[in-house]
Amino acid sequence: MMFIDVLIKKIKEKNNPSVVGLDPKIEYIPSFIKEEAFKKQGKTLKGAANAIFTFNKYIIDAVYDIVPAVKPQLAYYEMYGLEGLKAFYETCRYAKEKGLLVIADGKRNDIGSTAESYSAAFLGKTKIEDTEEAAFDVDALTVNPYLGIDGIKPFIEDCDKYNKGIFILVKTSNKSSGQFQDIITETGKSMYEIVAQHIEEWGRDLKGEYGYSSVGAVVGATYPNQAKILRKILKSAYILVPGYGAQGGTAKDVASSFNPDGLGAIVNASRSIMCAYKSERWKEKYTEEKFYEASRAEALRMKEDINGVLS
Amino acid sequence: MMFIDVLIKKIKEKNNPSVVGLDPKIEYIPSFIKEEAFKKQGKTLKGAANAIFTFNKYIIDAVYDIVPAVKPQLAYYEMYGLEGLKAFYETCRYAKEKGLLVIADGKRNDIGSTAESYSAAFLGKTKIEDTEEAAFDVDALTVNPYLGIDGIKPFIEDCDKYNKGIFILVKTSNKSSGQFQDIITETGKSMYEIVAQHIEEWGRDLKGEYGYSSVGAVVGATYPNQAKILRKILKSAYILVPGYGAQGGTAKDVASSFNPDGLGAIVNASRSIMCAYKSERWKEKYTEEKFYEASRAEALRMKEDINGVLS
Repeated sequence: MMFIDVLIKKIKEKNNPSVVGLDPKIEYIPSFIKEEAFKKQGKTLKGAANAIFTFNKYIIDAVYDIVPAVKPQLAYYEMYGLEGLKAFYETCRYAKEKGLLVIADGKRNDIGSTAESYSAAFLGKTKIEDTEEAAFDVDALTVNPYLGIDGIKPFIEDCDKYNKGIFILVKTSNKSSGQFQDIITETGKSMYEIVAQHIEEWGRDLKGEYGYSSVGAVVGATYPNQAKILRKILKSAYILVPGYGAQGGTAKDVASSFNPDGLGAIVNASRSIMCAYKSERWKEKYTEEKFYEASRAEALRMKEDINGVLS
Repeated sequence: MMFIDVLIKKIKEKNNPSVVGLDPKIEYIPSFIKEEAFKKQGKTLKGAANAIFTFNKYIIDAVYDIVPAVKPQLAYYEMYGLEGLKAFYETCRYAKEKGLLVIADGKRNDIGSTAESYSAAFLGKTKIEDTEEAAFDVDALTVNPYLGIDGIKPFIEDCDKYNKGIFILVKTSNKSSGQFQDIITETGKSMYEIVAQHIEEWGRDLKGEYGYSSVGAVVGATYPNQAKILRKILKSAYILVPGYGAQGGTAKDVASSFNPDGLGAIVNASRSIMCAYKSERWKEKYTEEKFYEASRAEALRMKEDINGVLS
């Protein structure tokens, strides 16, 4: 089944259009997990990476039955070196075993021949003479559009071949996203509108049974006005919405990225779920030892919060 | 010493403004290396990754005394999974031992807090409680500008703190690079000109003794006319020039990226050096067993070719 159809079915099944970001800095992890890992492997990249994988497993166990997908952010694994990447790999495997879709947030991009290799790494398979093997084998990947269609096409081809998805950056959630993305071009359109127009075209042949395409877009929750414009341009692209929670985006803000059918967007929260046990909202109710229960409570609260503005 | 000063000193010492790209697909590797690796580890990602590291060592041994730097492209290691990334790590270590600078070509990018993690991974150090450790510790990294200054600043801070460098994409070498990069904005300037203006400003505080900055730019050899315009905007940015050789860029084309002082650019070639033994130019002279001699011959030819148009 096409990636986008699997995603929508899981969203409907769980009545939840949100995704848990797994961006685990060692600072986020409860002491009891860290101390055990450090006792075994010292305060090293290896110790940190092992703590991260344990932490991720707790989070996944706490939310797998209520969310459709997780979104590990590659930067937070690469910073712990090879051991960190092993934790990324194992996190992806564990999440898939639990029936979750895995969206790797890597914002990869390059010229065509090199984009082919990135796509093989995450979505497709790597040829080794007369055989082939999947390297990371996630369900979807975020991709940067700056190099144009050459750098996007290899990913789209693998989406088609292996039932995978991509989400292409359009309007990012950060403060300076306007520096280049909001620039008005000579046609009067902004850069992010032009990128969106291309995405809509690029996804034309990958539409599934709900009319949405496996070629999606990234539009930050922190820009609801731009999201309204983009929702109209991106008729068939699913929108991945970062920026809810810790970055300041609210349920009302993310509502702009949805269509009247209640579909069309999936909202990510990372820190607000991972670090729920430290938050004003939950820290009285849950101890550090039960941090995962706080994560579940926050994931459920987020679901209700978003569904509340959609109905 | 600042990254840019080390780079320029090495360029002067070796009288060579070119860099060897290490983008090793298994298909490029001579049979005798592949067969040995496959015998030990099978036709697996691990077998391929080991063949790649052996291949890279041969290439590094053949060129370390004549080039200032190597540029491994992360996509070609990620496609071989965790074992591929181990080969990347070991290749970086080996090249540094041989006195080469290592420019990791990863085109990383994200919002500020996440860009911090990417920067820690490649340029800086990763904090683990009261201690810190370097994950990949290369000398420079390529970076994508689409998210604006938030996504660039963490890298610049680490360049300053750890004497590292970055090269920010401006005008890439691929056919479709114009799709977004050449768009004319309402001010009459193209997107790549605007990105270049910002880079010049971002590198202001990281200028070394030759007047060049550790905040560089990427401008493809395949666009010599745009390079002429960009060389004027990028007064202090060093330009990393991909696209020479296999992608079609000539010495005359890359000349546009240099300044009259003979400095200001460093030209990358990957496939034409790695696969020199298969090329029309060298295949009669060198056997597959002596592929590294063909790589050295091609690296020397490239050096003469580029120096020829600069003097």
